Amino acid sequence: MPTVDVHTHMYPPALMSVLRDRQAVPYVRLFPDDVASGDRLVILPAEESGSTARGRPIGPEYYDVAKKIEFMDAHGIDISVVSIANPWLDWVAKDEASEMAKLVNDDVEKMCREHEGRLFHFATLPLSADVADVVKEVERLKKLKFCRGIVMGTSGLGEGLDDPKLDPIWQAIEQQQLLVFIHPHYGLPSEVFGPRSGDYGHVLPLAMGFPLETTIAMTRMILSGTFDRFRDLNMLLAHSGGTLPFLAGRIESCIAHDAHLKKGGMIEKRRDIWEVLKKNIYLDAVIYADVGLKAAIDASGADRIMFGTDHPFFPPLGEDEDQWLSVTSNMSAIKSALSGDEKVEQDILGGNAVRVLRLTA
Amino acid sequence: MPTVDVHTHMYPPALMSVLRDRQAVPYVRLFPDDVASGDRLVILPAEESGSTARGRPIGPEYYDVAKKIEFMDAHGIDISVVSIANPWLDWVAKDEASEMAKLVNDDVEKMCREHEGRLFHFATLPLSADVADVVKEVERLKKLKFCRGIVMGTSGLGEGLDDPKLDPIWQAIEQQQLLVFIHPHYGLPSEVFGPRSGDYGHVLPLAMGFPLETTIAMTRMILSGTFDRFRDLNMLLAHSGGTLPFLAGRIESCIAHDAHLKKGGMIEKRRDIWEVLKKNIYLDAVIYADVGLKAAIDASGADRIMFGTDHPFFPPLGEDEDQWLSVTSNMSAIKSALSGDEKVEQDILGGNAVRVLRLTA
Repeated sequence: MPTVDVHTHMYPPALMSVLRDRQAVPYVRLFPDDVASGDRLVILPAEESGSTARGRPIGPEYYDVAKKIEFMDAHGIDISVVSIANPWLDWVAKDEASEMAKLVNDDVEKMCREHEGRLFHFATLPLSADVADVVKEVERLKKLKFCRGIVMGTSGLGEGLDDPKLDPIWQAIEQQQLLVFIHPHYGLPSEVFGPRSGDYGHVLPLAMGFPLETTIAMTRMILSGTFDRFRDLNMLLAHSGGTLPFLAGRIESCIAHDAHLKKGGMIEKRRDIWEVLKKNIYLDAVIYADVGLKAAIDASGADRIMFGTDHPFFPPLGEDEDQWLSVTSNMSAIKSALSGDEKVEQDILGGNAVRVLRLTA
Repeated sequence: MPTVDVHTHMYPPALMSVLRDRQAVPYVRLFPDDVASGDRLVILPAEESGSTARGRPIGPEYYDVAKKIEFMDAHGIDISVVSIANPWLDWVAKDEASEMAKLVNDDVEKMCREHEGRLFHFATLPLSADVADVVKEVERLKKLKFCRGIVMGTSGLGEGLDDPKLDPIWQAIEQQQLLVFIHPHYGLPSEVFGPRSGDYGHVLPLAMGFPLETTIAMTRMILSGTFDRFRDLNMLLAHSGGTLPFLAGRIESCIAHDAHLKKGGMIEKRRDIWEVLKKNIYLDAVIYADVGLKAAIDASGADRIMFGTDHPFFPPLGEDEDQWLSVTSNMSAIKSALSGDEKVEQDILGGNAVRVLRLTA
């Protein structure tokens, strides 16, 4: 059974040259006052200020497919399902969005074709375009042999994933049986992390802002009845669902005790969160510990969990480390959580992805 | 083995009359334009606006000890360790805080004395007073026979629980072996829940804002080295730690990959999050599902988890329900998570609290 990485990013060459030309977040730049640290990638407004360095170093591991393959080989990963990294194309002007999506999706498709059997991809939608044009791009994806789904942030058309204006897009995605990989980007306002948060590097926004963003977005989708209207819509959630498996009980309890929802009749008629977790949701295994991974398995079932790395983010801090801690800790968590059940271990490492995404070497 | 509820609130009579006299949050009021819905308790600014009713109905279950005992009897709870509910005394003017804390703590102590064997309590500190006066109140608690700890929000002296100005208070608490019950109140800014969040009642802020607040506060304490300076400081975290058990792996991974923290030497020298979870932290079992409860047990150990109800919050929506769903779902979660291990079940239902809090009937 192959090992499959379903959470792995790239900025393909076509997108890199766009990012290098930009003057506002997101962009790639060599800062004249800090040439020594090389090109920096800035994708979050918070990365421009504060006590820490601007953005993060960006090397060929972000855009050179040879580096992706090298990384895969070093970690025993047979197949990667790549997606472009946040913030995707959320920032693109309306009249440029459709063309940009085609450019980027075709560039990634080409990369996969040139490494047939090793690479598949999740495509990106031009969400700032008219809904009809977004639907057109969804339909165009049929022609891309290596496309297996769509990567998406939490802002949707700008007002979140519970926006009813998204319905035609969900419908097209459902019809085409594409998996939607939901990934956070926007985090939480920096003031929630407190007056000393800069002392702690990027730990608080990365470790907590990201997972909460995913959890809020998915809970809003559930509360808005999206999975009642699109019962065959399938989502893969980054970082094992943010905190959804752990909080699902509290969310259901808050729903069951909410007088406002009861008055509106919402409590009785919806597909509840446990059903959504087992019928509409897949979770990656990017959670870095067996405690969280076991909760993810408990919530959605071992047949719905898929290994991932988040490469090229979270590189080792040491220079010469061939094995990335961010990868080995997720591999160890799987072993530890399954305590010797090799069949299920292999399913999570690759079998589930092969089945759900119809991957063929 | 008795069943013990460690997460249960009251506004004692002395505090109720203060809340009834107030004109700003927090307060208790009969609204002239809505007399039919009776007295309302408003403790969060967000409860004053939006599409839902102002605050929540407040009846004698919030302030009448006879109602607490009746609730305990109906649910087979032998002992309750009561704490006053949020926002505690965080809002009290500096020059009134010490007197108010004495008034409230003595009122709760009296309640416990009048129901000896059924009630113990977590006291409240006058955190808006001078630090020296806060320490004085911690020391005065020695005289209160039924006091077993201190309930506290996440704001500390106004700048969070990682504020070094809290050190003399932690030191006094550590010396006196009082357990600090950390409970959320402030949540997250309402805009993070999105443009349609009002349609979903109070679900999003209650189900997600509260747990995140706790998680952020505790992670800041850990990152600031508080548990390295006060290695015997013990905290009980509401709602099974917010999301701390699930996110612990991600938090540790973000620390291990943060160049800023590495430069400061923080990565190597601290007590890590797993050690804090097993040596300094106890978790209540207010998580409403076995998925989350199992993660809490995995993270801290079954000997550190304690049953709670959150009474009188989350009453049943039906009029005639004697058994509260918010209680029975937490009891079922314990049974289901332990799958028949009655010894551990009893430890979580009461044994751990009896041992850790030195409770005697």
